Amino acid sequence: MNRKEFRDLATPDEARAAIDSLSLEGGVERVALEDARGRILVARLDAELDVPGFDRASLDGYALRARDTFGADEADPARLEIVGEVHAGAKPDVALEEGQAAEISTGAVMPDGADAMVPVERTDTEADGSEVLIRTSVAPGDNVMFAGADVAAGERALGPGTTITPRDIGLLSALGIDEVPVRAKPTVGIVSTGDELVRPGEALESDRGEIYDVNSYTIAAGVEDSGGEAILYPHAGDEQAEMEEILRTAADECDLVLSSGSTSASAVDVIYRVIEEQGELLLHGVSIKPGKPMLIGRLDDSAYVGLPGYPVSAMMVFRTFVAPAIREAAGVPEPAAATVSGRLARQERYEEGRHRLMPVGLVESGDGETLVYPVDKGSGATTSLADADGLVEVGPETDYLEKGEPVTVTLFSPDVRPPTLFAVGEDDPAFSRLLDGLENPRYLSVGSRPGLRRLRDGVPDAAVVAGPVEPEFEAVELGRWKREWGLVVPAGNPAELEGLADLVDRDLRFINRTTDSGLRSSLGAAVADLADERGVDRHDIVDAIDGFDLGLRAHESPARKVIAGDADAGLGLRETADRLDIGFVPLGEQSVFVLANPDRTEKEGVRELEAALSDAP
Amino acid sequence: MNRKEFRDLATPDEARAAIDSLSLEGGVERVALEDARGRILVARLDAELDVPGFDRASLDGYALRARDTFGADEADPARLEIVGEVHAGAKPDVALEEGQAAEISTGAVMPDGADAMVPVERTDTEADGSEVLIRTSVAPGDNVMFAGADVAAGERALGPGTTITPRDIGLLSALGIDEVPVRAKPTVGIVSTGDELVRPGEALESDRGEIYDVNSYTIAAGVEDSGGEAILYPHAGDEQAEMEEILRTAADECDLVLSSGSTSASAVDVIYRVIEEQGELLLHGVSIKPGKPMLIGRLDDSAYVGLPGYPVSAMMVFRTFVAPAIREAAGVPEPAAATVSGRLARQERYEEGRHRLMPVGLVESGDGETLVYPVDKGSGATTSLADADGLVEVGPETDYLEKGEPVTVTLFSPDVRPPTLFAVGEDDPAFSRLLDGLENPRYLSVGSRPGLRRLRDGVPDAAVVAGPVEPEFEAVELGRWKREWGLVVPAGNPAELEGLADLVDRDLRFINRTTDSGLRSSLGAAVADLADERGVDRHDIVDAIDGFDLGLRAHESPARKVIAGDADAGLGLRETADRLDIGFVPLGEQSVFVLANPDRTEKEGVRELEAALSDAP
Repeated sequence: MNRKEFRDLATPDEARAAIDSLSLEGGVERVALEDARGRILVARLDAELDVPGFDRASLDGYALRARDTFGADEADPARLEIVGEVHAGAKPDVALEEGQAAEISTGAVMPDGADAMVPVERTDTEADGSEVLIRTSVAPGDNVMFAGADVAAGERALGPGTTITPRDIGLLSALGIDEVPVRAKPTVGIVSTGDELVRPGEALESDRGEIYDVNSYTIAAGVEDSGGEAILYPHAGDEQAEMEEILRTAADECDLVLSSGSTSASAVDVIYRVIEEQGELLLHGVSIKPGKPMLIGRLDDSAYVGLPGYPVSAMMVFRTFVAPAIREAAGVPEPAAATVSGRLARQERYEEGRHRLMPVGLVESGDGETLVYPVDKGSGATTSLADADGLVEVGPETDYLEKGEPVTVTLFSPDVRPPTLFAVGEDDPAFSRLLDGLENPRYLSVGSRPGLRRLRDGVPDAAVVAGPVEPEFEAVELGRWKREWGLVVPAGNPAELEGLADLVDRDLRFINRTTDSGLRSSLGAAVADLADERGVDRHDIVDAIDGFDLGLRAHESPARKVIAGDADAGLGLRETADRLDIGFVPLGEQSVFVLANPDRTEKEGVRELEAALSDAP
Repeated sequence: MNRKEFRDLATPDEARAAIDSLSLEGGVERVALEDARGRILVARLDAELDVPGFDRASLDGYALRARDTFGADEADPARLEIVGEVHAGAKPDVALEEGQAAEISTGAVMPDGADAMVPVERTDTEADGSEVLIRTSVAPGDNVMFAGADVAAGERALGPGTTITPRDIGLLSALGIDEVPVRAKPTVGIVSTGDELVRPGEALESDRGEIYDVNSYTIAAGVEDSGGEAILYPHAGDEQAEMEEILRTAADECDLVLSSGSTSASAVDVIYRVIEEQGELLLHGVSIKPGKPMLIGRLDDSAYVGLPGYPVSAMMVFRTFVAPAIREAAGVPEPAAATVSGRLARQERYEEGRHRLMPVGLVESGDGETLVYPVDKGSGATTSLADADGLVEVGPETDYLEKGEPVTVTLFSPDVRPPTLFAVGEDDPAFSRLLDGLENPRYLSVGSRPGLRRLRDGVPDAAVVAGPVEPEFEAVELGRWKREWGLVVPAGNPAELEGLADLVDRDLRFINRTTDSGLRSSLGAAVADLADERGVDRHDIVDAIDGFDLGLRAHESPARKVIAGDADAGLGLRETADRLDIGFVPLGEQSVFVLANPDRTEKEGVRELEAALSDAP
């Protein structure tokens, strides 16, 4: 394989400068008024007419000559002849002489000869409708809105660069403008490559190493968030000619092309070749983690950025380098107030001297302080950003950050709100249902033992623990329940398993859980009991179970392996077997309990959790 | 006319309670993943598969058995036989025995027999490709991402109520989910009524009292801003049967019906009747200003709110009472941090004991304090909200607010930014062009004299003044230029006007500007000169000019009246005549000058204005 090396890494500032040197702007388009909300006006709009376009009655009542009312009051009303009616939307068919009045509706045109109006509440009409008594005196212009009083022809209405709000739509409506010139959204083509990628919704063949394409929709959503218009191109695979064709088409149709998703060297080779033939490579490789393998260049008249293949890296690089450029081109202002200050919840060490973008979660401590903890499932993780609230940038000169160190978190968006409750621990279906009733909780199913460890270290508010495990530190129990565990087997239990001894004595394939799991602890205890019973060593039992050492992390994975025919039995819960409609051989019951950090028991989310636990059946 | 009276006004809290008692919820809908950004998930989503679905190489390199590398280092590499290659997206066609390795790409499936991998950088391959030297030792699992390590089957992925971000779209993509159940947007039908209303883009007959329909598009934009889906119904006029039909259709199709725009009593009668026949009227009339004539009720299964007809009132009531209910139904969180504190820039008095919603603008004072000034062009104004940044609520017990009183402003949206420069004064085309080059300025063309008055009172940063007017207070002149003024006449000057004397001596219709205008001041001076010249009183000249007393507010309005054939001449600028391609009879030149508040000369927007003025040609 021919691999490109990244020997001279650019600095993050050089990468920003390279992107800034590209033009992503999409030009101007005209949109209908009803689609103009949030768009950026590109030209000044002046009023082409007066609003209102005529002298207008402000109330329901009588149009008249002000001088006919001079001296009138409740006791001594003026008496005027009613000579007509004027309705809103109708041309007056009457003109007033001295001593005359016309009934008029709000918004109607003032008739000729009238220079003021009196609201109906200050009048009385004679029974035959021929005359009106005016019980107040008015000055010329009273209760009349003159032509142009609201907006006058020629007046500056909206300036270039205005982000159009509903209120501006009101102004434009009043001026009769039904189409406005706005900045076109930059079009961003997203090219995802890699033979292993499958679009969500399609069938996945895991044994071929296929995975769902995470970057395409995620980056597309990020593009739209930044004010751009995302265009997803068909997934290209690693076939060179096909990929080249898609890249060229995207460059032709878009202001910016983003490639992502491929980790294969051949895809990178195609990109290099197309850029060398039809564009310019400005920069390749940036001294940043994650994000080192970033490319920046030009493809024909389009800008080009190659994002790293790993979703977390791709998204972090997109957010940090590409999104600001799209916002700039779209004219979308930088989101305001999108940072929070907090203290690092645990020490962090950095080995490499690279600028680092660290995804972090936020949790409020017992004394109301914001704690910041890194979220990282390893470089291949696709999903950890869903558990993060923002990122912390750490300079290349920093080797480590102390616990308690103040840091500034750039939130992923200004409306990110830290979870009200942050809990970790064992996967449990009953607890998961209980979380559904809480407002904005976060739960990381890391397993019982890691959950306890994290609770001890003071980061989460609570931990869920299952099986024969006890905390060796102070914690407050919020609630406890029981669940039945055992072997999940194919529907109907075709191998007729009766218990743990079958796994030991017969030639059956078993799927275990990892030692993090409380189920695994209970299984360990059952193994020890069986060993005692038989008077043998625990290792003899374990060695006789085919698959005991291969533990899966998730509580449903063994059952799914059983369903797929990869195993005869797996470790699991009765609830899982029932839900997936397969067989179950019970081995015992275990307790599940929720422990809270003693400093956080007064936190609202923890109190809500406690209440929910005591309400649970 | 049969008018409904609002005798028992409800309190604002009763109005809120009435709206809360209505159900606006739109139910559940399924949307494609690519359309899910910003939507609210209605159900918990659990992982239905492991991510990744297989044990996955984290880097490019060699898959092998960890125990074959024990003790290997740079000086003493392990030598393994290369027995195959595994690419991403392909099923391994090799299984490793002791002493064997397989070349493997990032993301590929670990072949059977392999339990770790070594990155290519720590290896050397023999020239014939038959063997690889491993220059490091690894432990089982090194550089391998195990199945389910990222997300495990059965794990809670996203909880109900989650607002879907790009990061959540990443998680959903990884799980292969291409469609999600989300809260349907509440559908809001907008029914605008009134014979006088014309949709923007259509032709307007001002002499019939027609005006553009401001509420429909404005309220629709407000509905979309609040997370609802707006449906505009055809404009109904005041014909009762037609209006009833539209109301019933809207109630049938929408979760909420908003009527607005009509001020006619007959429209209100239809609404009352339909609600009485097919629904329930919960409340009519609220003790609030603006917004008194508000209706709240039910129409069949739909909620109904009748908004006041005046656009400013309609929008204020919509924002204060209806938008929160739509947001609640849509599951859109209340926007954060949408208030600012400031001090009132001038005293305000309130006559009526009603709760008041006061639209206000913001301006930064010289010492960095936020000044808050009421924006009000009178109850009929349609557009003043475009000049406002937010609103201040004033309780019914408050008679007046002192200048300097601290107030809290609810911004119209969290991204409202007060203008960098707030100027007022004379309409001038050159100044308007100059503003185009500034960042986010606000200009209110109130005329020269009112502009000076406001500058003296300390609210705006600067005032633009034209004609023979001098300030009688301290102000700093930022720049000055000249403009030619005179009579705008039909193209070709068919009446062969030569000057002011023609207006006096001949039977010509003239259109003047208001006394607020600097042009009018210059015309006044010319009239005085002519009176002196003729040895007559100024009033004799004025009385002889047909239309002298009828002043229009806007600098282009007289020219537009001339074009429409309503007058023989108007007061205007040469620039206006040139732009509108009509004739011009010069009467003189006048100075236009920009004065700044002496306390604000260091403010950035003022300095930018000063720089722009000195750059201007």
